[in-house]
Amino acid sequence: MAEDCIFCRIAAGEVPAEFVNEDEHFVAFPDLHPQAPVHLLVIPRTHVASLDEAEALDPAASAGALAFIAATARAAGVAKGGYRVVANTGPDAGQEVGHLHWHVIGGKRLGGMA
Amino acid sequence: MAEDCIFCRIAAGEVPAEFVNEDEHFVAFPDLHPQAPVHLLVIPRTHVASLDEAEALDPAASAGALAFIAATARAAGVAKGGYRVVANTGPDAGQEVGHLHWHVIGGKRLGGMA
Repeated sequence: MAEDCIFCRIAAGEVPAEFVNEDEHFVAFPDLHPQAPVHLLVIPRTHVASLDEAEALDPAASAGALAFIAATARAAGVAKGGYRVVANTGPDAGQEVGHLHWHVIGGKRLGGMA
Repeated sequence: MAEDCIFCRIAAGEVPAEFVNEDEHFVAFPDLHPQAPVHLLVIPRTHVASLDEAEALDPAASAGALAFIAATARAAGVAKGGYRVVANTGPDAGQEVGHLHWHVIGGKRLGGMA
C-alpha cells in the first residue's frame, strides 16, 4: 500500500466508497466525476502505478482482471447496451491518479475515444 | 477462427498487417483509421466477440493480456509520454468489429474519453 494513494486507501476501506463489485484482487466503485450514466472505476487492491507496470501485478490478479471488468459491467447493467473500458496511462492520456485504474463507462451512446 | 472475421484473418496472416508486437496469444497492428499519431490494435489470436466474453479467453491469454498491451505501448514509443487503452464493447461504445480488441492510442495529448 502506498501511504498517500487515495485508491489504496479506498481499497483498504479507509476512505468510504460503494463497492459495486469486489474480489480478492480488485474493487469497483463509482467515479466521483461521472462522464456517463454508468461510470465506475476498477482498481487492483495492490498498488501499481499504471498499466505500464502491468508486469508488477500479482499473476493471479493479472489473470482475473479482464473477467472482473466484464463482470463489473454486467453487474452495472451495461453489458447488453454496451460499454467502454479505458485505462489512461501517463500525461498524454491525462491519468489523474497514480494507481492503475480502468474506467468502465456506459449507459449512453458514447462519443470519440481520443 | 470465425470465418467471416477480419481480425481472425489478420491474426492468421490471411489479410496482411504489420505486426508491431506478437506472441503466442496476441498480435498488435496499426489501426487503419488512426485517431492519433500512434493508434494500434491489440487482438487475441483466438476469436472472442468482445470483452463481455472475457471468460472465454484461454486462461494463459487472459494472464498475459495486460503485460502484452503494456509491452506494445513500449514498443510503439508511447510509454513515457503516455497512452490510452480502450476496449469498446457493444453498440453504446460503437464497437465496430466483433472480435475483442484494445485500442492503444498515444503520441499526442488526448481528449475526452466518453
